Amino acid sequence: MPRPAVSRLLDAIDGPDAVKALSLEQLPQLAQELRDEIVAVTAANGGHVGPNLGVVELTLALHRVFDSRKDRFVFDVSHQGYPHKLLTGRHGEFFRKLRRTGGASGFLNRAESEHDAFGAGHAGTALSAALGMAVARDRLGTDDHVVAICGDAAFTCGITAEALNNISSATKRLIVVLNDNEWSIARNVGALAEHFNSLSAEGGAADIFEHFGLHYVGPIDGHDLPAVIDALEKAKRSEMPVLLHVLTKKGHGFEAARQSPEKFHGLGAFHPETGETKKASPGSPPAYQDVFGQAMVRFARQSPRIVGITAAMPSGTSLSALAEQLPEQFFDVGIAEEHAVLFAAGLATEGMRPVCAIYSTFLQRAYDPIIHDVALQKLPVTFCMDRAGLSPNDGPTHHGLFDLAYLRCVPGVVVMQPKDEDELVDMLHTSLCLNGPAFVRYPRGAATGVKIKERPAKLAVGQAEVLREGADIVIWALGCFVAEAEKVAEQLSAENGLSVGVVNARWAKPIDRALLLAQAADTPLIVTMEDHVVTGGFGSAVLETLQEAKAPAALERIGWPDKFIEHGSSVEELRAAHGLSGPQIHARVLEAWRSLQVRPQRLTPRSEEVRPFRAAG
Amino acid sequence: MPRPAVSRLLDAIDGPDAVKALSLEQLPQLAQELRDEIVAVTAANGGHVGPNLGVVELTLALHRVFDSRKDRFVFDVSHQGYPHKLLTGRHGEFFRKLRRTGGASGFLNRAESEHDAFGAGHAGTALSAALGMAVARDRLGTDDHVVAICGDAAFTCGITAEALNNISSATKRLIVVLNDNEWSIARNVGALAEHFNSLSAEGGAADIFEHFGLHYVGPIDGHDLPAVIDALEKAKRSEMPVLLHVLTKKGHGFEAARQSPEKFHGLGAFHPETGETKKASPGSPPAYQDVFGQAMVRFARQSPRIVGITAAMPSGTSLSALAEQLPEQFFDVGIAEEHAVLFAAGLATEGMRPVCAIYSTFLQRAYDPIIHDVALQKLPVTFCMDRAGLSPNDGPTHHGLFDLAYLRCVPGVVVMQPKDEDELVDMLHTSLCLNGPAFVRYPRGAATGVKIKERPAKLAVGQAEVLREGADIVIWALGCFVAEAEKVAEQLSAENGLSVGVVNARWAKPIDRALLLAQAADTPLIVTMEDHVVTGGFGSAVLETLQEAKAPAALERIGWPDKFIEHGSSVEELRAAHGLSGPQIHARVLEAWRSLQVRPQRLTPRSEEVRPFRAAG
Repeated sequence: MPRPAVSRLLDAIDGPDAVKALSLEQLPQLAQELRDEIVAVTAANGGHVGPNLGVVELTLALHRVFDSRKDRFVFDVSHQGYPHKLLTGRHGEFFRKLRRTGGASGFLNRAESEHDAFGAGHAGTALSAALGMAVARDRLGTDDHVVAICGDAAFTCGITAEALNNISSATKRLIVVLNDNEWSIARNVGALAEHFNSLSAEGGAADIFEHFGLHYVGPIDGHDLPAVIDALEKAKRSEMPVLLHVLTKKGHGFEAARQSPEKFHGLGAFHPETGETKKASPGSPPAYQDVFGQAMVRFARQSPRIVGITAAMPSGTSLSALAEQLPEQFFDVGIAEEHAVLFAAGLATEGMRPVCAIYSTFLQRAYDPIIHDVALQKLPVTFCMDRAGLSPNDGPTHHGLFDLAYLRCVPGVVVMQPKDEDELVDMLHTSLCLNGPAFVRYPRGAATGVKIKERPAKLAVGQAEVLREGADIVIWALGCFVAEAEKVAEQLSAENGLSVGVVNARWAKPIDRALLLAQAADTPLIVTMEDHVVTGGFGSAVLETLQEAKAPAALERIGWPDKFIEHGSSVEELRAAHGLSGPQIHARVLEAWRSLQVRPQRLTPRSEEVRPFRAAG
Repeated sequence: MPRPAVSRLLDAIDGPDAVKALSLEQLPQLAQELRDEIVAVTAANGGHVGPNLGVVELTLALHRVFDSRKDRFVFDVSHQGYPHKLLTGRHGEFFRKLRRTGGASGFLNRAESEHDAFGAGHAGTALSAALGMAVARDRLGTDDHVVAICGDAAFTCGITAEALNNISSATKRLIVVLNDNEWSIARNVGALAEHFNSLSAEGGAADIFEHFGLHYVGPIDGHDLPAVIDALEKAKRSEMPVLLHVLTKKGHGFEAARQSPEKFHGLGAFHPETGETKKASPGSPPAYQDVFGQAMVRFARQSPRIVGITAAMPSGTSLSALAEQLPEQFFDVGIAEEHAVLFAAGLATEGMRPVCAIYSTFLQRAYDPIIHDVALQKLPVTFCMDRAGLSPNDGPTHHGLFDLAYLRCVPGVVVMQPKDEDELVDMLHTSLCLNGPAFVRYPRGAATGVKIKERPAKLAVGQAEVLREGADIVIWALGCFVAEAEKVAEQLSAENGLSVGVVNARWAKPIDRALLLAQAADTPLIVTMEDHVVTGGFGSAVLETLQEAKAPAALERIGWPDKFIEHGSSVEELRAAHGLSGPQIHARVLEAWRSLQVRPQRLTPRSEEVRPFRAAG
């Protein structure tokens, strides 16, 4: 798809004023250039294709009608922000490095541009944030416009309903654009999706938004630029909150994306003309996701009580395998994590065995039901926390780096992470045998390539696995860091002559106390490794255990630092940027070992204090 | 209000079958007896009055029409479960000890009775849980009925909307009772409340629930027992999900409660005839809540940018003071914690200074917006986490014992707890001077009685306060445990001849590292005390700091154990039950001190290991 470099309108767009300076007749050409650029860059880097191709005209219209330096655009999820980025001075090299180290974020980001009024990555936040901005504007007496741009899927999300209930009593001026493409990542679910469909069919009569005090306008063809501009101009002058119902097509203008909306929602690199993606090379390890999906099918076949629940992520979690093969045992509840967990709790009270497959970062949404409904009532719900660790191209809104800390404090739960895909199946199986809440975390992408046993093992709760004995140092590693630990142990042995053991911790809660204390009694240094922030994580669980037992071993905790981790080209690059590459870990363990030689002695009571205690009271 | 002990119908009610055995004509008498019992017991113990008096007839009708051993009643929040408890074998001594140690919980509780299908304490969970039960019933092929009983306030809560969106596609048989009394704790807010009002006025035409595929029936007079029974009988035979719109009056049958619905939603002991509550004795310390409310008014007067946000708890948080005096700077968003935090985030982007006053346990609902919207974007939102620590009569659904753990892992936030009410004002003031997210936690109820300074101090971030020097032990105490620490230090000095220091930690994040490490360098024992679970809490933050610096001091962490803490008559009783009474803490510190004498020596590398390291690589 070679493009003449000189005559492009886009090359001269240094900001929204340049968009406004074009004639209406030039806009279709600019729209085509935006599409070409988005397809070219996402074909190389991966990214969100369909959502961005769908909002090209809508975004052009927004920049014609409003001024994003003073008016506020709040994009829900903001994975549809590429045209906005390209129109606000971010095309060129920065956008070509989209989702790569040093390049543009795949989402809006207040730190990236003054034109990004609000960042996002999770769905359903736009209406609430926009309402806050609108009320601030009213109170501070300025006359800016606030526009929230929400996909129809955002309306499956409870926060959107909470916001809707508050709009009409809080402000007279707020513009909501309902970007209705009938899809979240998968096809939309539930009564509201049907309602939106009926609105489209009936031309907007009898509308639900009227109940919430919003003036409904629509439906509007979202690819008819003059129509969208006209509707936004009218909305700008409205003296009550207004909802524009805009119909768009995911992937508009790129045939491959039109044909496969779910695949082209977001994906890795693809052929820019055919849309073909690279097949995994034969013999390469499967993704953890696929192993999970297959295991769910296998277990669900054995019992109709086992069901899988996803919150609008069937393909991302690979629960789609269950949806295809045992649809009666599969539930997609929409972008509704709280409901997903409570629905699971209700199922569990009746003897069902629900498995919630939810990304670690999205499970933050369901923290209260986890504590208040599942854990407090000791209900046997399994949580498969996908994307635990990094989602490198997506960045901080999608990394799953806090789950161990926020779950470890919850009484009565167990939390696991497998070292490989065979152990993932064991852990899923184990969780289904337990009589209480169980959490299994695992990273995005390729597993290790081990063979999966024919019959899964039932693991003993809180029992770790010794992979390698060592007299000087023992590394307690969790999950995907077990492989790293083995490499470092080997290197410390071969290069530094140290005797280094490795333990596959398996359980972040409960910790294998007996093994840990036995090792701590005669190993000078324990090292922990985890794919999680060090603050309050697995290493802290080990530290607490050692402290409670007054164990004499020294400890070194290795994990992600206490800051938000940016997006980057790969897990490897991000690890290296934060001290977690193989050589960095090796150096750090060695340094901890060497510092034992010069370690301050423990304080003991001063000699004059070794005296008889007076009797109390 | 003396009652003849013999002739009561209630005394013979040993379960729902006994309710069914009565004639219809006897039910009004039983209703009156339920009301008398509820008023008598709550007058003595405190509790939820209005909500329970409002559902007496509804609950009687439920037990006439359904069988709670096999059918499922899911009460939203479940603070309206007293009549249900009284009708299911829990009257007598057990109910007389309502909300006291060893007595009935103030909420439904699966562990308390087979008739309690689902426990709760937070709002908005009933529809989702009930849908899970209904789907399990459909899958398992039984014919039980599932009835969710929700107040109108539950519909301000996003989870309810998420559930509504899923009902009609998931089951054909679910009964939702909308118990519409126009109040949450305060009067209901938002567009839905207005909509429900219009439904009541118009007799139910043009209804929002039809959009969600529910058959709407109503409005029904909720105090007309035959009418409610009739409606439930019809609903039982419905072949599509049905919503019964039942109008009730909070406090029905008790004049004082009818006159003051907000006061009588839930309260402490009162006069069973006049409804009068005890005045605080003159000179007794104010509640932390009241000090917060007054401080908000004071600061908000100084700047229109300072606004207070509550999620349906204006009186509980005392933000009602702001509502009365500066209503333009006050927002009650309904039971919508996620929206509250996102709304605050939106306000903060425009230079406003929002303060969210939300109970610690309810803030769990907003965990994702805290991370994804406020902290990641470094927005200056202040969170006043009320009820941090115990809410003793309410129990585990209301204790605030996890916030330090779930917040400490979030990058870039600061977390504080004041030792007294003057410091609370300092901390609120300090948070409003900071340029990022700040969390202040404080307990329910009486503060210490200190004088509040005329001008609040701006505290230095991460700087603790030394209250007492000590050479043997230093106690780092957070918040309300500072007073406890001072008592224990005094006792250890007077009775045991030890030199014990006390530090008012002030900050759980960041920890005052410099002071801690300076003390740890020459104090043999550091003790931490916190009103929070020990797992991952403040003590763990101190432990992590000591470990990272390889500090030689020993540590003892004192706080709540890793289990759900039951309800009880008082904070003191619950502390004593879990090892946190003054004498127990004294004994524990003394034991930790004594164990230093026999502490194992630190492990050092074996002598043969003190060898030159081979060069790496």
